[in-house]
Amino acid sequence: MYGLIGTWSMALKGVKSAVPRLKNGDNCGDVVEQAVSTVEDYPYFKSVGYGGLPNSAGELEMDSAFMNGDNFQIGAIAGVKDIANPIQVSRRLSQERVNNFLVAQGAEKYAEEQGFARKKMLTPRATGLWEKRQEEVAKTGRLTPYDGHDTVCFVSLDQQGSMAVGTSTSGLFMKHPGRVGDSPQAGNGFYVDSELGGVAATGLGEDMMKRPICFETLHLMQAGYNVQEALNKAVYGFVDLLGQRNGQVGEFSYIALDKNGNYACATNVDFQFAVATEKEEPTLYLAQPQANHQVAISQASAEWIKDYYARIQK
Amino acid sequence: MYGLIGTWSMALKGVKSAVPRLKNGDNCGDVVEQAVSTVEDYPYFKSVGYGGLPNSAGELEMDSAFMNGDNFQIGAIAGVKDIANPIQVSRRLSQERVNNFLVAQGAEKYAEEQGFARKKMLTPRATGLWEKRQEEVAKTGRLTPYDGHDTVCFVSLDQQGSMAVGTSTSGLFMKHPGRVGDSPQAGNGFYVDSELGGVAATGLGEDMMKRPICFETLHLMQAGYNVQEALNKAVYGFVDLLGQRNGQVGEFSYIALDKNGNYACATNVDFQFAVATEKEEPTLYLAQPQANHQVAISQASAEWIKDYYARIQK
Repeated sequence: MYGLIGTWSMALKGVKSAVPRLKNGDNCGDVVEQAVSTVEDYPYFKSVGYGGLPNSAGELEMDSAFMNGDNFQIGAIAGVKDIANPIQVSRRLSQERVNNFLVAQGAEKYAEEQGFARKKMLTPRATGLWEKRQEEVAKTGRLTPYDGHDTVCFVSLDQQGSMAVGTSTSGLFMKHPGRVGDSPQAGNGFYVDSELGGVAATGLGEDMMKRPICFETLHLMQAGYNVQEALNKAVYGFVDLLGQRNGQVGEFSYIALDKNGNYACATNVDFQFAVATEKEEPTLYLAQPQANHQVAISQASAEWIKDYYARIQK
Repeated sequence: MYGLIGTWSMALKGVKSAVPRLKNGDNCGDVVEQAVSTVEDYPYFKSVGYGGLPNSAGELEMDSAFMNGDNFQIGAIAGVKDIANPIQVSRRLSQERVNNFLVAQGAEKYAEEQGFARKKMLTPRATGLWEKRQEEVAKTGRLTPYDGHDTVCFVSLDQQGSMAVGTSTSGLFMKHPGRVGDSPQAGNGFYVDSELGGVAATGLGEDMMKRPICFETLHLMQAGYNVQEALNKAVYGFVDLLGQRNGQVGEFSYIALDKNGNYACATNVDFQFAVATEKEEPTLYLAQPQANHQVAISQASAEWIKDYYARIQK
C-alpha cells in the first residue's frame, strides 16, 4: 500500500507530480519533499512559496516543517525570506541532532551554509495585491490580517510502510512581521508516527496552536478509534470547547492518513484535499461542513478544477 | 486552594516573590508573570533573561510563552534580543486575536510598539563565558551546543480556580542563531487547562518538541489518571519510545500542577523544582531519577541552597 494526501486544491498539482515516485517505491520523505516543492514553485498559489502574499510590511515571510514518522525527527523554519524551497531546508534540518527549528535570519544563514538557493520570492503580482490592500487599510483605518492563510501540507505512506509529513506556508496575508502560525509546530500543525498514521492542519494558526489536535488524533487512533472517528473527535471536540471557553473560533481544516492508506478529513469551513493511493488515481475532493459535525465530500469535476485555475491566475 | 510550581533551583526565587500575591487572591496570570520576571531579572541564572548565555555568534536570543488556562489563549516569542522581560511580551501577545506568536525582529518591533523596555541583556560575564568556549571550540574543532538549556517555567493555580503557565529561556548555549526549542511551543513546552491542570517542560528542546507531552499529560488526566500517573505515563512512555525509534534520548524534565493543587515531577536527569501551595511554604525539591522510572524526591536543605548560590555567582 502507498498513499499521499494534501491540503487545498493546490495539493492536486503536488500529488500528481509526486505519485509516480510512490508507485516506484521511493521513500515517503522524498515524495513529501517533491509534492511540497511543486506547490512552492507554482507562482499562482498565493499562500505558499513563490508568489505568496506578504506581511503588513510588504515582506514575504515563510514557515515550513518536515517530520519523519519512523524516528520522530523534525525540522522546521519560520519567518524566513527568499528561500526557494522552505520544505527542503526543513527536511535537511530534521537530519541534524540539535538546532532543528530555526527562525528568521538564523534560518536563512543555515540555508546558505547548506548551499540552498536564495530566490526573490515576492512577485510583482503579490506586491500589487499588497499595495491594493494598503490603500484599503488607509481608507478604512482597519487592518484585518485574515485572508490567504492556506498552508499546503502533505502526508505520505510509502511501500516500505514509512510515513512522513511536510508543511509550507507564507501565513496570513498582512500578518505582523515575524508572525508564526501552527505550521512549523509539531503536534499543532502536523504529526506523524509510521506505526499509526499522519495528520496535518490548515486554517487560523492562532486558534489551531491552542491545541495539538494532529497529535491528539493519533493518540485516539492508538486507543482504538479509526482515522475518521479519531479526527472528528479531536477536531470537533476542540472546536466546541474553544467556542465555550473563548467565544470565537477560527477556521480549522485537517487531513489524516493512517498506516494502511485510509484517509480522513474534518473541517469547519469549505475545504478541498487531493489524494492518491494504490487504489485511487490523483483526485481532488471538495469538503463542505454540514450540521452535527458531518462533512459532505464530493469529487471535484474537471470543470471545477478548470475554473479554479482560471480564478487564481486572474 | 492555590499553588505555584516552577522548574530548577532558580524557580525558588520566583516562587518566593510571587506567592504573597497568590495568598492575596491575585490572578494566576499576574503571579506567573511576576515569578518569571523575577528569574529573568536575576543576573546569575545563565539560561534565562538578563545574564543568559549567548548563541554561537555571541548574541543572546530568548524564547518565551504564556498560556491562559481559562480560554486557551497563548502568546509566544522566539529568537528575540534585548527585551527586558520576554514573559511580559508573551502575556501581552496572548491577549491579541491574531499574531500571537512572533519571532526575531518582528517580535522586537511589537514589543517596542507596545512600550516594553529594551535592555541590553548580554552581560560581560556571559560574553566572557562565550569567549572561553570559543577558544575551546577553536582548540578542539568541535562545537557541542548542549549546556545551559534550563528553561524556567511556572504553573499557577489561583484562589478563583484559574490556571496559567509561563516559560522563559535563552535556550542552548552556543546554539545556532535563530534556534528555537520547545519553550514557545504549546503542547510541547507547556499546556494548561483550568479544568484539569498545567504542565511545563525543560531539557533538550529538540527531543521534547518531538512529542506534545505537556498536552498528552492533561489528556491522560482527563481519562482518569491522577497528575503523577499521567505525567509518568506520558513522559516515560515517550522517553522509551524515542529510545527504540531514534536511538538517542536527550534530557526530559517536567512539572505538573492539577486544578486541586496536587503537583508532580518526572525527569530522566537530576532536576530541581520549587513549589508553594496553601498547605506548603515555598520549598525547593531535588529530584533524582531511579531505576524503573521512579524519581527520588527530597527537600533541598538551607545549606544546599546556599552552596547553589555560591556556585552560580562564581
